[in-house]
Amino acid sequence: MAESQWRFGGNSKVVGAGAMTLRGVMEGVMKNLDENDGRGVIHLSQGDPSAFPSFRASAFAEEAVSNALRSANFNGYSSTAGLPAARSAVAEYLSKDLPYNVTSDDVFLTNGCTQALEAALTTLARSGANILLPRPGYPDYEARAAFVGLEARHFDLVPENDWEVDLAAVEALKDENTVAIVIINPGNPCGNVFKYDHLKKISETAKKMGILVIADEVYGHLTFGSNPFTPMGVFASIAPIITLGSLSKKWIVPGWRIGWLVINDIDGILTKHGIVDTIKGFFNISSDPVTFIQAALPEILLKTPTEFYDKIVNLFGDSADKCYKLTNEIPGISCPIKPQGCMFLMLKLDLSKLEGIKDDLDFCCKLAKEESVVLVPGVGLGLKNWMRVTFAVEESYIDEAFRRMRAFCERHAKKHTKISYYVESPIFDFIYV
Amino acid sequence: MAESQWRFGGNSKVVGAGAMTLRGVMEGVMKNLDENDGRGVIHLSQGDPSAFPSFRASAFAEEAVSNALRSANFNGYSSTAGLPAARSAVAEYLSKDLPYNVTSDDVFLTNGCTQALEAALTTLARSGANILLPRPGYPDYEARAAFVGLEARHFDLVPENDWEVDLAAVEALKDENTVAIVIINPGNPCGNVFKYDHLKKISETAKKMGILVIADEVYGHLTFGSNPFTPMGVFASIAPIITLGSLSKKWIVPGWRIGWLVINDIDGILTKHGIVDTIKGFFNISSDPVTFIQAALPEILLKTPTEFYDKIVNLFGDSADKCYKLTNEIPGISCPIKPQGCMFLMLKLDLSKLEGIKDDLDFCCKLAKEESVVLVPGVGLGLKNWMRVTFAVEESYIDEAFRRMRAFCERHAKKHTKISYYVESPIFDFIYV
Repeated sequence: MAESQWRFGGNSKVVGAGAMTLRGVMEGVMKNLDENDGRGVIHLSQGDPSAFPSFRASAFAEEAVSNALRSANFNGYSSTAGLPAARSAVAEYLSKDLPYNVTSDDVFLTNGCTQALEAALTTLARSGANILLPRPGYPDYEARAAFVGLEARHFDLVPENDWEVDLAAVEALKDENTVAIVIINPGNPCGNVFKYDHLKKISETAKKMGILVIADEVYGHLTFGSNPFTPMGVFASIAPIITLGSLSKKWIVPGWRIGWLVINDIDGILTKHGIVDTIKGFFNISSDPVTFIQAALPEILLKTPTEFYDKIVNLFGDSADKCYKLTNEIPGISCPIKPQGCMFLMLKLDLSKLEGIKDDLDFCCKLAKEESVVLVPGVGLGLKNWMRVTFAVEESYIDEAFRRMRAFCERHAKKHTKISYYVESPIFDFIYV
Repeated sequence: MAESQWRFGGNSKVVGAGAMTLRGVMEGVMKNLDENDGRGVIHLSQGDPSAFPSFRASAFAEEAVSNALRSANFNGYSSTAGLPAARSAVAEYLSKDLPYNVTSDDVFLTNGCTQALEAALTTLARSGANILLPRPGYPDYEARAAFVGLEARHFDLVPENDWEVDLAAVEALKDENTVAIVIINPGNPCGNVFKYDHLKKISETAKKMGILVIADEVYGHLTFGSNPFTPMGVFASIAPIITLGSLSKKWIVPGWRIGWLVINDIDGILTKHGIVDTIKGFFNISSDPVTFIQAALPEILLKTPTEFYDKIVNLFGDSADKCYKLTNEIPGISCPIKPQGCMFLMLKLDLSKLEGIKDDLDFCCKLAKEESVVLVPGVGLGLKNWMRVTFAVEESYIDEAFRRMRAFCERHAKKHTKISYYVESPIFDFIYV
């Protein structure tokens, strides 16, 4: 039989969506890496500091998981939506920051925040529906929306306004098929933290538009600036909220794959509109998170010593400051807004100061090739000529990464500018020597 | 604002698919359970004996996972498709039973076999495509097919022929949009094990039809009858095969959520037809299995002492025999074919001998209500008036379950038959006193 008589082929929606994810975007950058560079690769692309000694997971959390494993009571299948005690622990943990109590029925445990995002978007995907996504944002939203057939419409986060949402633009995007708005706070990729009043305005806008808010709080509590973290669920009496979160970031264990999707819906609107039943249906057809890790959630969420969180947040604050300062000493890149949370800052590319660099993707590919430093090109996040850098790495790693980035930018600097120095002064913004 | 002005609603495909899964089917049965029955519920519905002391996971596997956790080297994100060492271990493990070597590039690690099934069906879903599924079968295939828009067409497993595939019927189902056939071996729900020659014929039929074979071998090696387990991959030179498997069943750890999807494709047909790239795309948009459990796979797959497997298989063989014998002593139900593998046997319902029982679903609902015993109604598996029972439980549990089933059937026996005895004799098949 001729080979061409084989009848099957791949689902093109999967290939298209796969290429849109952060993983898909990074494959294109990483293939430029020079295997012969003996200095080793410095990855500043992912929010995962777990490999560094300073960011080792809490011994307490490790012990809780180990005990659950060793008990042999949790080798079996979980119940759909998660073990009751684990759902209850998430409810108790989140309720601490809310003016009302979330119940365990409102909590669905997931394989990390990735599956929580998948559940939310899959639930809302109806023929012709559209969803409002932030730009810049986290590209897995675009990928999942494309896969489930939700049209993505983008509103801007405005750098001149501390990356706040352009709410007038949000209202202009809306039509009768708009179902939800996604808010990522603390902000990935911008490292911003929304103020209470801004979040309240977002919920009021959602109410006015008759849509729900998907609040991605996977970086919840990881804040070190002047704006404290406010969960979107605080405003659940204004508009219904679906909150997404996980252990991955705050507990530095992304490989443990435990997240949650939580219904914050004081007036029962999501139940009445069939959203809660659809979410239940999603978890009936989907794979659960590991049972023995679920079983450790009550210990991890409710009893991890606060010293662990304090240490992590202090480290993040210090390294965010350092990255901010170092970035602004390098010609051709700048960080206009100091990050206040999350694990990232956004660098702005000034092509007028660089030679032989076409755009952010070109910058990232050449930086990978010449200096073995990996950044995320802004084009993959919806913002051309910016780049995302994580500061959630060991300090020595930052020093070396920025040495290489400086060398790269100086080598590619336009001849007449040579080297730029940033002077911290309200009068002289940039002085070129 | 009036509540009706909220614009969103649930994705009906999700709700529909969720109701089709085994979980969805069982929700309908379980709601009949009587909370006041002090005897406790006996679940014979799921293939998960992990809660019983006799089926405790191997201390060796537990140690391997605990060591990986304690090392703190595997708290971070996994690479897409899995850790290289873990992929390599699966390749080595499966290659032992094959006339060629699978490579680590052929292996994709999954969140249990559920995600492997999802990956396979999602990959193949193209507009208008159809897939051939066994009847009776495992309803999560129907659910996933419905969700991704693959038309399910059913071929029969024939009880009179040891549950072999009706291959003539398979060919009759085929049209130009048929892309794959699903084969579950060892068989869920029938407890059958296909012979080498039958599997070869299936692969030849697939070749003739130009379709691939999805070989669900999640119960691989769990056989105790006269037919040994033959992996479908043995026939990869005839037709391309996608093999699905997991730790869940053979290692009795379904809650660990580690499975695999493996390409068995000697002639590179799946690569040429874009299937492999599509599978990669699927894993780019999907959540990975837990990293530290992946890290334990080389130890678990390649070094678990064989005594563990031998003990499990012997226990299954003994309890399958016991269930077979006890079933055939109860009026109104019978097990025509002794199981040879897997964790299940199919009971046939004889409505002519029972009063006030409409069908298999009615039997299961009333049995749950009156005797707190949970079976899977065949209608949920595609075979009306049969029921699936797991024998993968502690022996004392079987005794009590069958005592209650006998009481139930005797209570519901037609007046003129009262009690039936099965006499093992070629001449007198059933004698009613």
